[in-house]
Amino acid sequence: MTVKSFIPPHRTLMGPGPSDVSERVLHALARPTIGHLDPAFVGMMDEMKGLLQYAFQTKNELTMPVSAPGSAGMETCFMNLLEPGDKAIVCQNGVFGGRMKENVERCGATAVMVEDEWGRVVDPNKVEAALKANPDAKLLAFVHAETSTGAQSDAKTLVELAHKHDCLTIVDAVTSLAGSPLKVDEWNIDAIYSGTQKCLSAPPGLSPVSFSERAAEVIKNRKTKVNSWFLDLNLVMGYWGGGAKRAYHHTAPVNNLYGLHESLVMLQEEGIENAWARHQKNHLALRAGLEAMGINFVVAEKDRLPQLNAVSIPEGADDATVRTRLLKDFDLEIGAGLGALAGKVWRIGLMGSSSSMKNIELCLSALDTVLTDMGAKINAGVAVDAAKAAS
Amino acid sequence: MTVKSFIPPHRTLMGPGPSDVSERVLHALARPTIGHLDPAFVGMMDEMKGLLQYAFQTKNELTMPVSAPGSAGMETCFMNLLEPGDKAIVCQNGVFGGRMKENVERCGATAVMVEDEWGRVVDPNKVEAALKANPDAKLLAFVHAETSTGAQSDAKTLVELAHKHDCLTIVDAVTSLAGSPLKVDEWNIDAIYSGTQKCLSAPPGLSPVSFSERAAEVIKNRKTKVNSWFLDLNLVMGYWGGGAKRAYHHTAPVNNLYGLHESLVMLQEEGIENAWARHQKNHLALRAGLEAMGINFVVAEKDRLPQLNAVSIPEGADDATVRTRLLKDFDLEIGAGLGALAGKVWRIGLMGSSSSMKNIELCLSALDTVLTDMGAKINAGVAVDAAKAAS
Repeated sequence: MTVKSFIPPHRTLMGPGPSDVSERVLHALARPTIGHLDPAFVGMMDEMKGLLQYAFQTKNELTMPVSAPGSAGMETCFMNLLEPGDKAIVCQNGVFGGRMKENVERCGATAVMVEDEWGRVVDPNKVEAALKANPDAKLLAFVHAETSTGAQSDAKTLVELAHKHDCLTIVDAVTSLAGSPLKVDEWNIDAIYSGTQKCLSAPPGLSPVSFSERAAEVIKNRKTKVNSWFLDLNLVMGYWGGGAKRAYHHTAPVNNLYGLHESLVMLQEEGIENAWARHQKNHLALRAGLEAMGINFVVAEKDRLPQLNAVSIPEGADDATVRTRLLKDFDLEIGAGLGALAGKVWRIGLMGSSSSMKNIELCLSALDTVLTDMGAKINAGVAVDAAKAAS
Repeated sequence: MTVKSFIPPHRTLMGPGPSDVSERVLHALARPTIGHLDPAFVGMMDEMKGLLQYAFQTKNELTMPVSAPGSAGMETCFMNLLEPGDKAIVCQNGVFGGRMKENVERCGATAVMVEDEWGRVVDPNKVEAALKANPDAKLLAFVHAETSTGAQSDAKTLVELAHKHDCLTIVDAVTSLAGSPLKVDEWNIDAIYSGTQKCLSAPPGLSPVSFSERAAEVIKNRKTKVNSWFLDLNLVMGYWGGGAKRAYHHTAPVNNLYGLHESLVMLQEEGIENAWARHQKNHLALRAGLEAMGINFVVAEKDRLPQLNAVSIPEGADDATVRTRLLKDFDLEIGAGLGALAGKVWRIGLMGSSSSMKNIELCLSALDTVLTDMGAKINAGVAVDAAKAAS
C-alpha cells in the first residue's frame, strides 16, 4: 500500500450541500492550530457566539456550534429536551421529519406524526388538530426548509400554534439559516439547529444551535441524564458557556471553527437581509432559465425555498447518466432525489457562495448541452438568456 | 458588532493535544471542498480506511473515522456494544475511566469499577478478580494511554484476561495511536477509538475507530436500537461500509478528512515503527533535560507514555503564572493537570509533529528562564545540554 496525498478536483457545488466554499474560508481553515483552551481561542469563541446570534437573529445566551455535523445538532435538541416517557408531535413532509421521529424514539419518548405529502409544506391545520388531540405533548418539531424537497414551511405560524398549546418547539433550519428569512427571537423558537455546509458555505462538520431561556430551563431541570455524554448541554456549557473560565469538556474542532468564524464574518459584512435577498434574486433567475427550458418545479411557487430547487427530471433524460456527465464534463455537482423522490427529481442548490449568476449560467448551459445530446424533451438554447433577462 | 477575521497566533503545542499541525496537513485542509458522495471523495474514503488499518495494525473491515472528536468515538464504542441491562467492567486510573463510566450508565448498563491510583497503570490482578466476580459482564473497558496522567497500561495482558472470561474489550487509544506500540489484531482488541489531534497531528474533530468481526457481529445482532441515530454503526456503515455504492447518512466533514488523510500519508511515509521509535527517543531526551533540572515524573519509569510527560510542579513555582508566561513570552503551550492532579502537575506533550528536538529545546530553555525568574527550586542552565547529550 502506498497512498499519495489527496488532491480533490475543483467542482462547482450545486447540490443540497456542501456548497462552494470560498477561498477566504478555505484559507481560514489552514491557519495554525492552537489549543482549545488558549486565551486567543476563547476570544474567538466569544466572537463566534455573537456572530451566530446575528445569523439566527436571536439574543439567546445558549447559542453555539455543536462539534459535529447537522445530524448531531438535531440530536442535541431532541436528546436534551426529551426524557423517557415524553411525547413529541413531529411533522414529516420529507426525509428529515423521518429522522426526527428516529431521534424522538431513541430518547425513549413517543412520536405523534403529522404527515404531509413530500413537496408540500407542513399544514398548520393538521398541526393544530394534533396539538388539540395530544394535550400531554411536550414539544412540536418540524423542518423549516426541507432539503429533500425544497419546501419552506411557515415557521412563525407553527411556533405560535405550539405555544398556544403550551408546547416547546424544535426547528430544523439546516438549509434555511442565512438563505431565507429566519428570526428566532421574533418567532419565539425554543430550539433550533443548522449546518455549516449550506447557506453559510463553510465546510461540513459543525452544527450551530440555539436555545431560548425557556428551553434552557427545561434542560437544567431534567430528571434523567441526557443519553449522550458528548451532546449533554449541561456539560457542554461549561466550555461554551462564556466568561473567561472555560472547563475542558471535549477538544473542539479548532480549524473547522476557524472556517465557520470566517464565513460568519462574511455574512456580517454582506448583511443578513442582503444575503436573503441575494438568494431570492438568484432563485428567480434560475427559475426563469429552467422554465424556459421546460423543466418544472416540484414545489408550489409560494412555498419554494430559493436555495434548494427541486425540479422534475424531464422526459427522455436518465437521472444517473445526466449527473455523471455534469460531473465529468463540467465539474458540476447537482443533487439526486432522496427517499420517495429518488430517480424523479434533481435538487439544484443555490446556497451561500454557490448562489451566483456565474453558477446559474454554468448549470443551465451544462444541462442544456447534456440533455440535448441525450435527446431529452427540452427547449434547447434558451435557458441562459432567460435567466439573464430575469436577473 | 463588527467582528474581523480571526488570525490565531503561532504557538508551539506541547500540551495534551492538539499537537503541532504541520504545514502539509494545514495545506490539505484548504483544498477545495467537494461533495461527500463525489466519486473522487469516495476514492479518498477507501484510501482512508486502508491508512487507518495500517495505523491501528489491523485488518478489521469496520475501521473508519467517526465525524466528531474523540469523546464521540468513545460513545460510538459504548453505545453500539452495550444494551440496557448489560454489565461492563471499567478500569479507572485517571480522568478518562470516569468518562467511560458515564458512557456505560447512559447506555442503561451497569459499570463495575476497577480503580487504581492516578498515575499508576491498570492492575491486571484487580481486573482478573473483577472478571471472576462478574461472570455476567459483557465487556472490559480501559484506557491504554491515560492522557490525564501519562501512564501506559498493558493492553495485551488486559485483553487476554478479558477474553479468558468471555468478555469483549473497549480500548481508549486516544493518545497512544501512532505514538507508542499498539497492535489491534495481534492483541485481539475488539473495539478501539482514538483522536486525530494527538500523535497523528491532524486538527481535532475526528475519531478513528476500529471493531473486530466479533464486535461487529454483536452490533449487527442488537435487540434494541442504539441511543444515538448519528453514531449508530448499523446506519453509518451504509456510508463508510465500502464499495462503490455509498448511501447518505450524514454529511461527512470533508475538509477535516483531507487533513487526516494527509497526516496518515505522512505516517505511512515515516513508517509506524519509526514513529514509535521517534516518540521514545525524544521522550528520553526530554526526560534527561527535566531530570537534570530537578523536575520529577509522576509515573514510574517503566509505565511512562513517551508522548505525554506528567511532571510535578517544582517547589516555588506557581502553576498558572508559569503557563501564562510560557504562552505569552514563548508562544508555548504546555498542559495543566486535570481532575485530581490539577495544580500539582504539568503535562508536557511530545505528540506527532510536536515530538522533535526543536520543541524539546524550546520547552526546556523556556521553563529554565521562567522558573529561574520566579525563584523556583531548580538546577538552572543545565537542561538543554542534558537533553542534547541524551538524544
